[in-house]
Amino acid sequence: MLDKKAKGVFTIAATPFLPDGALDFDSLDRMVDAYIERGATGLTILGMMGEAGKLEADESIAVVRKVISRSRVPVVVGVSSPGFAAMTALAKQSMDAGAAGVMVAPPGNLRTDAQIIAYFQNTAEFLGDIPFVLQDFPLATSVQISPSVILKIVEDCPTCVMLKHEDWPGLEKITALRRASDAGSRRISILCGNGGMYLLEEMLRGADGAMTGFGYPEMMARVIDAFTAGDLNRARDIFDAYMPMVRYEAQPGLGLAIRKYTLAKQGVIAHPTLRKPGAALSAESISEIDAIAARQERRLEDLGLKPFS
Amino acid sequence: MLDKKAKGVFTIAATPFLPDGALDFDSLDRMVDAYIERGATGLTILGMMGEAGKLEADESIAVVRKVISRSRVPVVVGVSSPGFAAMTALAKQSMDAGAAGVMVAPPGNLRTDAQIIAYFQNTAEFLGDIPFVLQDFPLATSVQISPSVILKIVEDCPTCVMLKHEDWPGLEKITALRRASDAGSRRISILCGNGGMYLLEEMLRGADGAMTGFGYPEMMARVIDAFTAGDLNRARDIFDAYMPMVRYEAQPGLGLAIRKYTLAKQGVIAHPTLRKPGAALSAESISEIDAIAARQERRLEDLGLKPFS
Amino acid sequence: MLDKKAKGVFTIAATPFLPDGALDFDSLDRMVDAYIERGATGLTILGMMGEAGKLEADESIAVVRKVISRSRVPVVVGVSSPGFAAMTALAKQSMDAGAAGVMVAPPGNLRTDAQIIAYFQNTAEFLGDIPFVLQDFPLATSVQISPSVILKIVEDCPTCVMLKHEDWPGLEKITALRRASDAGSRRISILCGNGGMYLLEEMLRGADGAMTGFGYPEMMARVIDAFTAGDLNRARDIFDAYMPMVRYEAQPGLGLAIRKYTLAKQGVIAHPTLRKPGAALSAESISEIDAIAARQERRLEDLGLKPFS
Amino acid sequence: MLDKKAKGVFTIAATPFLPDGALDFDSLDRMVDAYIERGATGLTILGMMGEAGKLEADESIAVVRKVISRSRVPVVVGVSSPGFAAMTALAKQSMDAGAAGVMVAPPGNLRTDAQIIAYFQNTAEFLGDIPFVLQDFPLATSVQISPSVILKIVEDCPTCVMLKHEDWPGLEKITALRRASDAGSRRISILCGNGGMYLLEEMLRGADGAMTGFGYPEMMARVIDAFTAGDLNRARDIFDAYMPMVRYEAQPGLGLAIRKYTLAKQGVIAHPTLRKPGAALSAESISEIDAIAARQERRLEDLGLKPFS
Repeated sequence: MLDKKAKGVFTIAATPFLPDGALDFDSLDRMVDAYIERGATGLTILGMMGEAGKLEADESIAVVRKVISRSRVPVVVGVSSPGFAAMTALAKQSMDAGAAGVMVAPPGNLRTDAQIIAYFQNTAEFLGDIPFVLQDFPLATSVQISPSVILKIVEDCPTCVMLKHEDWPGLEKITALRRASDAGSRRISILCGNGGMYLLEEMLRGADGAMTGFGYPEMMARVIDAFTAGDLNRARDIFDAYMPMVRYEAQPGLGLAIRKYTLAKQGVIAHPTLRKPGAALSAESISEIDAIAARQERRLEDLGLKPFS
Repeated sequence: MLDKKAKGVFTIAATPFLPDGALDFDSLDRMVDAYIERGATGLTILGMMGEAGKLEADESIAVVRKVISRSRVPVVVGVSSPGFAAMTALAKQSMDAGAAGVMVAPPGNLRTDAQIIAYFQNTAEFLGDIPFVLQDFPLATSVQISPSVILKIVEDCPTCVMLKHEDWPGLEKITALRRASDAGSRRISILCGNGGMYLLEEMLRGADGAMTGFGYPEMMARVIDAFTAGDLNRARDIFDAYMPMVRYEAQPGLGLAIRKYTLAKQGVIAHPTLRKPGAALSAESISEIDAIAARQERRLEDLGLKPFS
Repeated sequence: MLDKKAKGVFTIAATPFLPDGALDFDSLDRMVDAYIERGATGLTILGMMGEAGKLEADESIAVVRKVISRSRVPVVVGVSSPGFAAMTALAKQSMDAGAAGVMVAPPGNLRTDAQIIAYFQNTAEFLGDIPFVLQDFPLATSVQISPSVILKIVEDCPTCVMLKHEDWPGLEKITALRRASDAGSRRISILCGNGGMYLLEEMLRGADGAMTGFGYPEMMARVIDAFTAGDLNRARDIFDAYMPMVRYEAQPGLGLAIRKYTLAKQGVIAHPTLRKPGAALSAESISEIDAIAARQERRLEDLGLKPFS
Repeated sequence: MLDKKAKGVFTIAATPFLPDGALDFDSLDRMVDAYIERGATGLTILGMMGEAGKLEADESIAVVRKVISRSRVPVVVGVSSPGFAAMTALAKQSMDAGAAGVMVAPPGNLRTDAQIIAYFQNTAEFLGDIPFVLQDFPLATSVQISPSVILKIVEDCPTCVMLKHEDWPGLEKITALRRASDAGSRRISILCGNGGMYLLEEMLRGADGAMTGFGYPEMMARVIDAFTAGDLNRARDIFDAYMPMVRYEAQPGLGLAIRKYTLAKQGVIAHPTLRKPGAALSAESISEIDAIAARQERRLEDLGLKPFS
C-alpha cells in the first residue's frame, strides 16, 4: 500500500496503442520493464499523459490489470472522474487488482478554498481506506490550491498520503509545506511532475522525488541518484544534458506525441500512436527531436552515461 | 430516428435518486409518464441536468434502457465524454436499446473555430450513422461557437440533425442560422434550452421548440401550443405566469436542486435527492420557492389553467 | 462620505455618448436628474455598465466632475484598474471632486482565498482613508469570493463599507453574511446588482437595497418601497410587471445596448450609442423590446403606476 | 517607422523602480544603453513584463519619452488597453514622441475567430496609419489565434507589420505562416517571445528574430548571430549554456522578479523592485539563481564568451 514514505521515481506511464488505435498490450509489457530497468521505484498509470480520458471503462481496468501483473514496483492508478461513482468504481477495481493507491485531480470548476477542501473530503469519504495522491496541476486543471488548503486536506484526510506537485511556479509551495511538516503538520510524500523541468530545485526544496514522465525516463533516476549521493554538481551536469529535450517535450498538447515518438525510437513501445484527438508530429518536429536527441547522447557520453536502447 | 424535422418539446429529464444516492427506477417511470402527459414530444436523458457525470457506465446504460422501455416518444441520450471511445460505446449501446439519437457537447478546452469544427468532424466519424444533436451551451462548456462554425459542421456532417441552442445571448444566432437555411444551407432542427428563459423570443426567431427542463414542465408545451396556434398574447400571458419560477430556477448550480424539489413537491419523483457533489436547499430557499409556486398557481388559474399534481 | 449605513437604490449610471462616440454631457445631466427623480438614493458611475474601460483617463475624471456637480445624492465612482497607481489616482481625483466613495472589482487572475484577501488589503492600503465598495461579480470577473473571504476583508479593512453583491447564485451568501454580522462581525451595507433579477429575495435575505442599473430605473425604488412598507405582495406584483424586461436586459454583452435603447426611448438620454466594441441591436431585438415595453406599461397601469416619460 | 522587414532582437524592456515604487529614470537610461550594447536592434517598452498595467497614464508617457530620447534603435510601445480610447491616446502620444510603432494584445474575453478579427480590424481603424505589432500570447491572454486568423488580419490591415509570437506550442504556427507567405500572402516580420525558450527552433521555422526579455539579454543576439552566420552547432552550444536560467526565469508570475534580480546583480538597474502586486524572491530562490548564474558563467567561458558586467 502506498504510504507517506514513498520516494524516488514514480514514472508516469504512457498508454501504448496499435496504429489502428487499439490497446497494444505487448508494448505495455515492454514499457513496464523498461521503466523499471531505468530506475522507476513505482509506476503511475491512467494519468493525463496516459490518455486516460480516451479509454472506455473496460479498457481502463484491462490496462490496470496488465500493468500490475507485470510490475515488480507499486502501481498508482489515476481515477479522476467527473463523478464520484465512476471514480470509486475504478478505484475499487484497481485496488482489488493489486494497485498500491490511486491519484485524484480536482475537477476544473472548483475555485474557492472551501470548494477544494470539500471536494477532497468527499473524495476521501467515497474512497474509504484507499490511499490517494492529491494531484496539484493548475496549468491543466485551472484549479489553484494554496499550501494552507493542502495542509487542511492532509489534516482532514488520513488517506491522503502524497502530493503530486506540478504547480508552476511551485518551488515556494514545497518550501511552505516542508516548513509546516517540520512544525508538526503530518508529513506526506511530495513527488514532482512537470516533466522534471525543475527537478533539482524541487529536491533542494524538500521533495521526495519525481512523479513524471519523459521520453528518456532514466533521467529522473540518474539525477535523483546523484543528488541523493550528495554530488549536486554531477546531478546538474546530468540534468543539463537532458534539458534541451525536457524543454522540447514541455510543449503543451504536443508533449505526449514527442514522448511517444522518442519512446518508440528507442524501442520501448512499438508505435508512437495517439488516440484522437491527438497531435501528430510534423516532419519539422521530428527533425528537431532527432537533432536534440543526438546532441543529448553525445553529452551523456561525455558524462560516462550510456543510452539504454 | 431523430431527424431535422424534430420539433415541440424535448424535455431534459432529471435522474431520480433514492435518499441513499441509488437510482430510483420507480420514480424514473413516473417521471417519464409525467413529462409525456405534460406535453413532451421527446425526452433527452443523461444531459448535464441529468447528473450524467455522476453515474457509473453501467448505471448510465441502465437508465437509458429503463427510460426507452417506458417512453412512447423519441429519446435522445447525452453521450458527451472526455474521449471518443467512451462516447461511441454509450452511443452504440443506446441506439441498440432504441434511442432516437444522441447529444454531444464540446469539451471545455476547445477555443478556435478550427478546433471546434475538427472536434465535431471526429464526433461524426466515430458515431457513424447515428444522428446527433450539437449542444451549444457556452456558459457551461466555455466553448463559444460562431454561427459560421455551426453551418460548417452542418455542411460537413449529414448526421448532425439538431442544434440544442443555449448560447446566451443567443437570439441573433437563431436568426443568423435561419437566414442561412433560407439561403440554401441545410436546415436542421433548433430546440432551445436555458430553462426556457427566452422561449418566446426564440420561437419568434425561428426555433422549432424547446429542449430544456423545468420543475413545471408543462410550461414549455403550453407556451409553444399557444404560440403555434397564433395567439402570441396568450403565449406571453402563460409564460409570464411561470417566469418568476423560471428565473428562480435559473440560478447556476442551485437550479437542479430547485427543479428536483418542485418535481418532488408535485409527486413526479419521490425524493429531491442529488448525488454529491450537489447543492442542498436551505430553509430560506424552500420558503422562497413555495411562495413563488403559490403565486404561480393563482396566476395560472386566472388564465384557466390547472395544475397537474 | 459613504458608510456602512447606505441603503436604498444606488443606480448604476450609463455613460451617454453622441452618435460620433464623444461624451454627451447634456444627456449626462438629464440622466442624473431622471435617476434621482425615479428614486435613486445614490449613483454609481464608471462601473462596467458605464463603459468605464472605454474612456481615456481625462474623460473619466470629466464624467466624475460633471455628475457630482449635478447630483444631490452621494456618488460612488468605479476605480477598478489593472494597477494600483491608476486606481489610486482616479480615486483621489474623485474624492477631491466630491465623491462619496469608490468601488473596486478584483482583477480576473485572482483564484485562491489568500490572493483575494491580499488584493483587497493592498487596495485598502493604497486608498488610505477613502471608503470603498467591494464588487463581487464572478460572472464578469471570474473571481469567486467565499463569505469567509468577504468577512476577512471586512475585518482587516475598516474602509470597506459596502458589498456590491452580484454573485449568482448569491442568496445564500447574503444569509451567511447577515448571520455573521448578527453574531458580531462588523456589519456593512449590502446592495445588490445583477439587474435586479433577484431583488425581492435579496431583500428578504437581508440586503439593504440595490446597486444596479435598468432601463426603467424606477423599478428598484418602487419594489423596495413596497417591500419596506411591509406590502410584500404588492412588491411582488410590481416586480413581476417589470420582470420580462429585466430578463430581456439580462442578456450578457447585449444588456447595455438594450438599456441605452430604452433610456433613449424614454428621453432620458439623447442617443443609444455605445462606444466600440459594443453590441448593436437588430431590428428583431428592437421589435421584441418594444413589445415587452408595451405590455409592461399596461401591467403597471393595472397596478396604478404611471410611466415617467 | 516599424515595418515588415524588422529583424534581430527587440528586447522587451523592464521598467525600473526605486525601492519606494517611484520610477527610476537613471536606471532606465543605463538599461537602455545595456540592452543596445548587448545586441538589441530595437526595444519594446510597456509590455506585460514592463509592468505597464501598474503605471498611471502620465507615468507611461514619461517612460516612453525617456526611453526614446535615449535610444539609438527603434522603440515599440505596448498600448494594449481595455478600451480603444486609451489605446489610441497612448499610441498617438508615443508616435509623436518618436516611437517606431505600437504593440497590441487582444483582451481576454475574445473567443471566436470572428471576434478576434473584428477586434484587430477595429484596432487598425482606431490607430490610423500607425504600424502595429500583433501580440499572440495565449498563456497570458487566454485568447487562441489560429494561423488563418492571423493571415486574415494581415490581409485586412496593412498597418499590421509584425507578429510577436509567443503561442506555446507555437512552432507549427510559424511554419504555417511562412508557407502562406511563400504562397503569396503578405509577409510580415515574426519576432518570438516566451523568454527565448524555443528560440533556435523558431529561427529554423522562419522567424526573423526575438522580441523577448531575459536577465542576460545578450543571449538572444549571441544565439541569433551564430545562427545567422550558419554555425548552428555553436548557436546550440550558446543557447544550452543559458538554458538553465532561461528555464528558471520561465516561471510565470515569478519570472519578472528573477529577471530584475539578475539585471540588478549585473548593475544594469539599481534595484530589483517590482510594483505591487509583485512577487518577492525568497532566500531559497536567490540561492538557486546565484548557483545557476555561476554555472552559466563558466559554461560561457568555455565557449570563449565573457560576461558584460
